Amino acid sequence: MVESWSFLDTVESNFRPLVVIELAKGTKEETIEWFTKRIVDKKANGGAQLLIKPLVMENGVENIYLVGASHLRLLLGAETVGLVKECSDNSMRTFTYSSRKTFKDFADDNHNFLTMAECQYIIKHELENLRAKNEKMIPGYPQAKLYPGKSIVRRLLTSGILVQIFPLHDREELKKLRHNWYGRVKVGYQPLDDIRCYFGETIALYFGFLEYFTFALIPMAVIGIPYYVFAWEDYDKYVMFATFNLLWSTVILEVWKRICAILTYRWGTLLMKRQFEEPRPGFHGVLGVNPVTGREEPVYSSLKRQLRIYLVSLPFVCLCLYFSLYVMMIYFDLEQWALDYHKDNESNFSSLMLYVPSIIYAVVIEVMNRIYRYAAEFLTSWENHRLESSYQNHLILKVLVFNFLNCFASLFYIAFVLFDMKLLRQSLATLLITSQILNQFAESLLPYWLQKRYNRRMKKRMCSQKTDRDLSIAEQVNMEKEMGTYLGTFDDYLELFLQFGYVSLFSCVYPLAAVFAVLNNITEIYSDALKMCRVYKRPFAEPTANIGVWQLAFETMSVISVVTNCILIGMSPQVDALFPDSKMDLVLTVALVEHLLLAIKFIMAFVIPDKPRDIQMKLAKLEFESLEALKQQVRAFQMQL
Amino acid sequence: MVESWSFLDTVESNFRPLVVIELAKGTKEETIEWFTKRIVDKKANGGAQLLIKPLVMENGVENIYLVGASHLRLLLGAETVGLVKECSDNSMRTFTYSSRKTFKDFADDNHNFLTMAECQYIIKHELENLRAKNEKMIPGYPQAKLYPGKSIVRRLLTSGILVQIFPLHDREELKKLRHNWYGRVKVGYQPLDDIRCYFGETIALYFGFLEYFTFALIPMAVIGIPYYVFAWEDYDKYVMFATFNLLWSTVILEVWKRICAILTYRWGTLLMKRQFEEPRPGFHGVLGVNPVTGREEPVYSSLKRQLRIYLVSLPFVCLCLYFSLYVMMIYFDLEQWALDYHKDNESNFSSLMLYVPSIIYAVVIEVMNRIYRYAAEFLTSWENHRLESSYQNHLILKVLVFNFLNCFASLFYIAFVLFDMKLLRQSLATLLITSQILNQFAESLLPYWLQKRYNRRMKKRMCSQKTDRDLSIAEQVNMEKEMGTYLGTFDDYLELFLQFGYVSLFSCVYPLAAVFAVLNNITEIYSDALKMCRVYKRPFAEPTANIGVWQLAFETMSVISVVTNCILIGMSPQVDALFPDSKMDLVLTVALVEHLLLAIKFIMAFVIPDKPRDIQMKLAKLEFESLEALKQQVRAFQMQL
Repeated sequence: MVESWSFLDTVESNFRPLVVIELAKGTKEETIEWFTKRIVDKKANGGAQLLIKPLVMENGVENIYLVGASHLRLLLGAETVGLVKECSDNSMRTFTYSSRKTFKDFADDNHNFLTMAECQYIIKHELENLRAKNEKMIPGYPQAKLYPGKSIVRRLLTSGILVQIFPLHDREELKKLRHNWYGRVKVGYQPLDDIRCYFGETIALYFGFLEYFTFALIPMAVIGIPYYVFAWEDYDKYVMFATFNLLWSTVILEVWKRICAILTYRWGTLLMKRQFEEPRPGFHGVLGVNPVTGREEPVYSSLKRQLRIYLVSLPFVCLCLYFSLYVMMIYFDLEQWALDYHKDNESNFSSLMLYVPSIIYAVVIEVMNRIYRYAAEFLTSWENHRLESSYQNHLILKVLVFNFLNCFASLFYIAFVLFDMKLLRQSLATLLITSQILNQFAESLLPYWLQKRYNRRMKKRMCSQKTDRDLSIAEQVNMEKEMGTYLGTFDDYLELFLQFGYVSLFSCVYPLAAVFAVLNNITEIYSDALKMCRVYKRPFAEPTANIGVWQLAFETMSVISVVTNCILIGMSPQVDALFPDSKMDLVLTVALVEHLLLAIKFIMAFVIPDKPRDIQMKLAKLEFESLEALKQQVRAFQMQL
Repeated sequence: MVESWSFLDTVESNFRPLVVIELAKGTKEETIEWFTKRIVDKKANGGAQLLIKPLVMENGVENIYLVGASHLRLLLGAETVGLVKECSDNSMRTFTYSSRKTFKDFADDNHNFLTMAECQYIIKHELENLRAKNEKMIPGYPQAKLYPGKSIVRRLLTSGILVQIFPLHDREELKKLRHNWYGRVKVGYQPLDDIRCYFGETIALYFGFLEYFTFALIPMAVIGIPYYVFAWEDYDKYVMFATFNLLWSTVILEVWKRICAILTYRWGTLLMKRQFEEPRPGFHGVLGVNPVTGREEPVYSSLKRQLRIYLVSLPFVCLCLYFSLYVMMIYFDLEQWALDYHKDNESNFSSLMLYVPSIIYAVVIEVMNRIYRYAAEFLTSWENHRLESSYQNHLILKVLVFNFLNCFASLFYIAFVLFDMKLLRQSLATLLITSQILNQFAESLLPYWLQKRYNRRMKKRMCSQKTDRDLSIAEQVNMEKEMGTYLGTFDDYLELFLQFGYVSLFSCVYPLAAVFAVLNNITEIYSDALKMCRVYKRPFAEPTANIGVWQLAFETMSVISVVTNCILIGMSPQVDALFPDSKMDLVLTVALVEHLLLAIKFIMAFVIPDKPRDIQMKLAKLEFESLEALKQQVRAFQMQL
């Protein structure tokens, strides 16, 4: 069907498939013809000027297409998306085709100048920016309306004609990466640069954060161990531990910003200009004119959205919070029942029974979190946010508030209403450990096992005894298209966030939490790596310069933990004993210490620069250069006069 | 001496003097010749391409020069400094000469397109950017070293050859402005746009803030009056008042950011790109290479500066703080003595005597603040900061910490150590009112009176009976050059900052403070306006987009005031009475309320957007346009391939 290739420089003799497009079965011929024509068409005609090849399956069905691009096309695309690469003089600069010779490792015949992930990102960007010209609808589907400037791919996706677009794995590269990452037993850092080359910056930054966070927890864990081993109950020691924890948690969050700047500078994303944000695919509304761009696009009244948020979403979230508290009260009834049972029939079995309510509650919490997550996604999508970033912010806020309450409400209740430190410690331990086990199982091991079983069956069906490496491209595509889709780093960060809560909120009561967190994170690195490499489809690379709203979430958690820890220490009998005459003095002292700690936290956050000095200098240098260039331009123009 | 004018388009038949340069008496001929040559020289030869004219005085001494520029030169200069002006379609855009026709009110013969303040700012910028080429020193002054790229004017200033550069007043304009501003009795807003046109954005923004702050205080004052009139002592009413105050102070600071964005968008400075910062004039060091610019310039080791800061400045500031506390203790002795005296001889005189220690202390505080200010300036300048912004930040930090302690330590001591609410109220009132009277007197009325006396004497000496308007340019320059120099908005903001402290820190004890603040600010507007128009030399306009570090300072003060007010309310006997059984419950309740208020504050600051929606839209539109233009450029380039 697609006979005439589109060329920019030369015939691409070896077409390298980069991205897979899966259309719905039974898509009309005219639609396919129109869509592929638009993809290969020249830029000047409003096309994407990419290469496309149908993939013929065994059963003769032709609904899968491979997309590639010529080397020159990819270089021009790199300029369009504003990629930042390293120059020969080790500085980072925005890539432009005209200045290509100044970049490190650039050679006209070096097709590895752009990484495969970058090439796939460029193709995704070009496909998404393929816009309707004067088509009123998708040919063959009159109900799928188009208007000038509407992204064709987004309309195809929302109307179900396009099933999915995903980038292909590179079996060779993946094998190397797996080997470096988790294939061999070794002590050392993760190959973050390799991960970034293969999976892109967002995922590499998550693994960077996970690794950094694990290292940062080690001092807490090391200091925590003797408390457990020697069963230290002196509260002056606990005070020391908690104080260290509080300052430490501020320091690590500030230092992370610096490390993040170093990483993203090296990767070029710190300097990358952000692109103008288009409406998200699911956004709908009546056709109107966007006041910012002046373009025709769906418009949805902000008032309606506000009404949906405040009259539906907010009450729903409150209801969920209430339900979560209700479940918590049931848990306390169970707890009481177990305690009574233990008192009546004291035995090994009954003392084991003491842990059962906590374990059940931990499982229920996890289940509720997951159900709520779907509800939150549904609601936020129904709120019809125009931008993906706004959608994400509302979703994260909803999920964070609920998860925070759901996970920690019982602990707060035990600590500050029941004043039962023994139960707090037991509850904390059970919740933390159960949730970690459940998470590891549900997130990585179970999908891995399912995937493996599926792959085995597929291979059997294909009657092939070939190893992974020898698979034909058709077989590879067939296998990958059935893999699950990685939905982004949200759940992974959320897990870390809750873990941080368990570790820091009540750290002075249960110093061992940090030890468990470290152990969990070490296995988490491996299971997440496994998940990325084995379980899911390869995700598109997403350039990013920081971990976004999660930085704020972690900082807020560390502020809350100052308050909780100060109160816990104030409530301890040992500290109580220091103020035999006046409870007032005790409370006032605790309040004073708390305010001092908070003040120190804020001052520290203010004083520690967000970027290391050498990165600051490099950025200043780039800014200076661009200002100078502008001045030169003005001067040159003025001299002509 | 300067015979050949420099022309860009045409002979400027009517030379309009904009800026005055005063050289030291007895400056060598060769220096003057070289300097004026550099000023008039073509841009291509590294000159400033301005117009300059010597001003011949009565006594024949020729050390004053008037600088102007052709209309075209000023337009090109506007492009160089990156001025943002309004277009015909009401959008704000960076001015470029090539797109000049698209700007509102532009016509080739309209010499009022740029305001006089803008013209003077451009000339200042051009003079400061007049750089040494290969001169090794200033001709005639071998000790005044130069190196390629060094600003000539800065070297002339630091070596004392150049006495001052200042912009000329425009008598006509000033008269109109004075009339609109404070010349007639009227109720209404200040003519901020006129002030901005005449004095520039920094000063206009100060007056904008002063006016806004005064309006914002009115609700507090209105609510405060009945407390005084009816002598309400119910603390539940005080609680209401304090709560209102705390939330209100957060709201007004957030709303100010929005108003500031509206003002600076209209003035174009919100969009103005900041210029690359050059080393400040006073900065010295051994000649080295700046790693950012790669240019030769003095380099000073950061370690040395740190040592100076931590080993000299920091101990000095601590010593001053200690001294301030020592003076405070003397004040309390005096207070005790006055009290005893009043007890022994009860009379009208003795009850008046009760106020004397507070008044003396208030005067001492003011004197100490002023002396410390000089010391802080000396020290910060000795720390040898490379950038003006870094110098300013260190100076502001030093001054703020000392002034805060100096002004409020005694009040904190009375409130939280002596627990004497009556004395607190009396002290607060005396300090506030005395400092306001002293400030008004020292800042505006005294200089005004001195200036007036001087002017009268000058006129008498010149034996002229002319009114201001008929003065020759020589007479005007002669009079203006002797006027004081306005040193920036620092002291004015500081005064407002301390006033905000008096009003908010102990607002629940003395609600009347807001009333005095409002009254003071109304007269302050007038006296500051008088000061700007009558007392000081016209200052150069400084573009600015916000009130900078003061926003942070005010916000910090409002956080501290949450804490103090909660404690004050908790200490009141009425609230005490609500918790008859347990002091603990009282303290815990107060702590809880305080944390809630702080949380609300932070959430409010986070939720209220810093820029109004329409400004956000306009900024987004501009960003979109520039991204589109870039894309077009890339596309056009790619099509050529």
